[in-house]
Amino acid sequence: MKREFIRKRLYEIIFESDTRAGKIFDVVLLCVILLSVILVMLESVVEYKQGYTGLFNVLEWLITCVFSFEYLVRIWVVNRPARYLMSFYGLIDLFSLLPSFLGLFWIGSHSLLVIRALRLLRVFRILKLNRYTKAGQMLTHAMWQSREKISVFLIFVVTLAIIIGTAMYLIEGEVNGFTSIPKSIYWAIVTLTTVGYGDLSPQTAMGQFLSSVVMIMGYAIIAVPTGIVTSAIITERNTRNTQVCPHCLFDRHDDDALYCKRCGGLLNEFE
Amino acid sequence: MKREFIRKRLYEIIFESDTRAGKIFDVVLLCVILLSVILVMLESVVEYKQGYTGLFNVLEWLITCVFSFEYLVRIWVVNRPARYLMSFYGLIDLFSLLPSFLGLFWIGSHSLLVIRALRLLRVFRILKLNRYTKAGQMLTHAMWQSREKISVFLIFVVTLAIIIGTAMYLIEGEVNGFTSIPKSIYWAIVTLTTVGYGDLSPQTAMGQFLSSVVMIMGYAIIAVPTGIVTSAIITERNTRNTQVCPHCLFDRHDDDALYCKRCGGLLNEFE
Amino acid sequence: MKREFIRKRLYEIIFESDTRAGKIFDVVLLCVILLSVILVMLESVVEYKQGYTGLFNVLEWLITCVFSFEYLVRIWVVNRPARYLMSFYGLIDLFSLLPSFLGLFWIGSHSLLVIRALRLLRVFRILKLNRYTKAGQMLTHAMWQSREKISVFLIFVVTLAIIIGTAMYLIEGEVNGFTSIPKSIYWAIVTLTTVGYGDLSPQTAMGQFLSSVVMIMGYAIIAVPTGIVTSAIITERNTRNTQVCPHCLFDRHDDDALYCKRCGGLLNEFE
Amino acid sequence: MKREFIRKRLYEIIFESDTRAGKIFDVVLLCVILLSVILVMLESVVEYKQGYTGLFNVLEWLITCVFSFEYLVRIWVVNRPARYLMSFYGLIDLFSLLPSFLGLFWIGSHSLLVIRALRLLRVFRILKLNRYTKAGQMLTHAMWQSREKISVFLIFVVTLAIIIGTAMYLIEGEVNGFTSIPKSIYWAIVTLTTVGYGDLSPQTAMGQFLSSVVMIMGYAIIAVPTGIVTSAIITERNTRNTQVCPHCLFDRHDDDALYCKRCGGLLNEFE
Repeated sequence: MKREFIRKRLYEIIFESDTRAGKIFDVVLLCVILLSVILVMLESVVEYKQGYTGLFNVLEWLITCVFSFEYLVRIWVVNRPARYLMSFYGLIDLFSLLPSFLGLFWIGSHSLLVIRALRLLRVFRILKLNRYTKAGQMLTHAMWQSREKISVFLIFVVTLAIIIGTAMYLIEGEVNGFTSIPKSIYWAIVTLTTVGYGDLSPQTAMGQFLSSVVMIMGYAIIAVPTGIVTSAIITERNTRNTQVCPHCLFDRHDDDALYCKRCGGLLNEFE
Repeated sequence: MKREFIRKRLYEIIFESDTRAGKIFDVVLLCVILLSVILVMLESVVEYKQGYTGLFNVLEWLITCVFSFEYLVRIWVVNRPARYLMSFYGLIDLFSLLPSFLGLFWIGSHSLLVIRALRLLRVFRILKLNRYTKAGQMLTHAMWQSREKISVFLIFVVTLAIIIGTAMYLIEGEVNGFTSIPKSIYWAIVTLTTVGYGDLSPQTAMGQFLSSVVMIMGYAIIAVPTGIVTSAIITERNTRNTQVCPHCLFDRHDDDALYCKRCGGLLNEFE
Repeated sequence: MKREFIRKRLYEIIFESDTRAGKIFDVVLLCVILLSVILVMLESVVEYKQGYTGLFNVLEWLITCVFSFEYLVRIWVVNRPARYLMSFYGLIDLFSLLPSFLGLFWIGSHSLLVIRALRLLRVFRILKLNRYTKAGQMLTHAMWQSREKISVFLIFVVTLAIIIGTAMYLIEGEVNGFTSIPKSIYWAIVTLTTVGYGDLSPQTAMGQFLSSVVMIMGYAIIAVPTGIVTSAIITERNTRNTQVCPHCLFDRHDDDALYCKRCGGLLNEFE
Repeated sequence: MKREFIRKRLYEIIFESDTRAGKIFDVVLLCVILLSVILVMLESVVEYKQGYTGLFNVLEWLITCVFSFEYLVRIWVVNRPARYLMSFYGLIDLFSLLPSFLGLFWIGSHSLLVIRALRLLRVFRILKLNRYTKAGQMLTHAMWQSREKISVFLIFVVTLAIIIGTAMYLIEGEVNGFTSIPKSIYWAIVTLTTVGYGDLSPQTAMGQFLSSVVMIMGYAIIAVPTGIVTSAIITERNTRNTQVCPHCLFDRHDDDALYCKRCGGLLNEFE
């Protein structure tokens, strides 16, 4: 009985975040994840790596133990372990554990780091925090609603980048650093997105003229995704958090609606 | 009879995309086009070009055969061949074939590449895919509606770039790389569009002060096209697919409305 | 009589653009202005300057003659010459003439170019073209409506740039190129506006961290002017081109207004 | 009596800005603050520092005297001095005075400058100017309303930057300048925000491909904060200063509406 009670209680703490204990668990876990991420980062800086090898190893194994323990508890606590193991966060939890254990058998610090970086993905758990869920859902929904328009836009931009890149390859040529079409397309994307590293830049008068036209065009182009997303967010905002129809329970009415647009019933009958 | 039937059938497959076969044809053609584009790209990379000359030639001729065959079938199948030949996509189809055949008589790989790049234009066929047509039309219409405002804006920006460029040419002079007014205008456009390569950058205190003012101004300027396009997209979204309530004549309903949100009457009573 | 008639006719052609002749005059004048601007530009390119000195001089004097003749006709034709002479376009017309005449007495090609560049300002006449006037007015009005918000925003950005610039001067120091506070402020503006030349870039770990924070902040900051201008343009669009109240002739109603918001009269009484 | 009257009068002048004298005081104080800021800036330029040491010292002490006098008067005049001393502006006023006095005992011009830079914070007083207060409040309120969405977005961007940075560190490696993960994250932020200094840029084909994907993604990403802020500003504009029609209870009137646009009833009947 008691074991079952503990299991239920732990499930509430680990997987849900309604209770006080659940919230504390979420925040503590997040801190450990952030710590492990900062650890991976600092370990890549040569000076720190050489100066504090011992400290890094201790912390590394401490975090691995915490994560392993948490992973086993999650499997024990959940009703359908197989489903958790195969879920998005389940796989990430697994992949963030593997590198440390692999390191026992496999020597080679750099290759190890490569797979250890997967632990970074755990950071996304931060988005499960309660206070951000609603705002996040709203943004995700707005982006999802405009997926077709964004797709068309991205296809158009990539096609444009290919054409402009090829043109610049022919105009500037290999002498000025545009050594191949893929590299010229890279330049075109760097320019169209207004990043502008300057590792490649047009040298000929003709190339500079074409670039100017591309940049001026980029002005209008960069406005399009902004317009799409803004329009989606405004629509999203207008159609959410509104009243529920007392007749058909439909809940996505405009702010100024008097009657339900789905069943025609009066909305604020009892007010 | 049968020949005529095949012609009709082929027309449906090649030019329309309502049938299953038509959709498959569109996707297959698009893959071949993308393959040919990737081929042109890779061929421009010196290492690949030298290592796989044979493979490139074989694939090149294979794609040319497919495109030639498709081109001939299109001419045979269409009712008014002359009209197709002179249409936008007809001319692109022709221009994407010519280079390979010209290559038989004319030696010189680089000049060949120049015209072969025209094949890239075929990529725009991707926009004829059914699922993107609606979103694409909507964006095109929104841009078209705001063409006058965008024109005024672009004229203003170009004029501004000319004036700023000339001012910087006088301030910085040839010593700091601003060797001519056109080059200074190129710098002004690079700055106003926030690309900022850094191949040219102000060196004198006066030049850096003017640049700072230009960049701060650019803040407000970059907001204008975004405002224009966003406003057009929102208006577009609001004014499309609307229906008028037959009871109270209110006409600003959402796309998914069944009943009038103002009077509660059924919207599509007579349909 | 006849002289007076010619004067009136010329006034219509030169100052107004309702008649056919007036429109042609506007376009021709604009072409000459653009030609003169291109001339100034090309003359600054050393190769062209040396190769075509003769041609440049001839064209230069031809354009000066056209502008002088136009200037004198404008003075003769206008009712209150003094008012024209002191007006914005009148002064620009004068300043664009002076340099060429000054060149007769004053030798020194570069200093000459400095003042000849004033001719560029005539390009703004392009905005007087009829078809752009309406869209231009609309944009100008939208910007004017949001002048206070934009001012607050610019003051905030400049203050922020001063603080960030000073901080970076203290962090990076003169060794890494941040030789003075004004130069560091220039860097801060280059960064906040996402131009990013790269002539100055943080070298220390601390500086790169602060830069990252500044850039992430710049994300939210660049959204503000866009929001202000977009909101103004949408409001502008909604309140224009709408119906006139038949009772009080007020003409700025929303699209969905049934009654005049100024006098309360029914709007579409006679429809 | 008279002393108390002077105190009250001075309080009105210094702390309020309704009276004519109060406005003049605000503007004069702001000019002195700006002067002191410009002084700190110019003093950091080596040439000026060496050429005008005497002048800088005199002006420095003059401004310090003015600020000290103002600070003492503020303390004398205010009702609860302790509260002012601990307030945001009170602390800034104190910190902007300390450096000059510390300089008497502590020699070392550069360290001095470090703390003197705190005086810059006084510039924020500019936002207390009456004419900007309303627009500023509106913008601040709009930003505050969207704080959750902006937080989610920033968390997402930082997480993305960490993942992309780690990936680039593994792809490009230390040979191409990506010497550590923190530095690679710095590069990722420089790229995602479209700043693009170019001090670090991808050299390998794989790195350039990933960068291109990141930049294209950055297109959609930069649209999100703009969408959030624009939506907030539009909502802000729509929901402020609204009034409810006493006849039909419709509540979405423009700021300048006198009559209800829905039923034609007088809006402010009972005011």
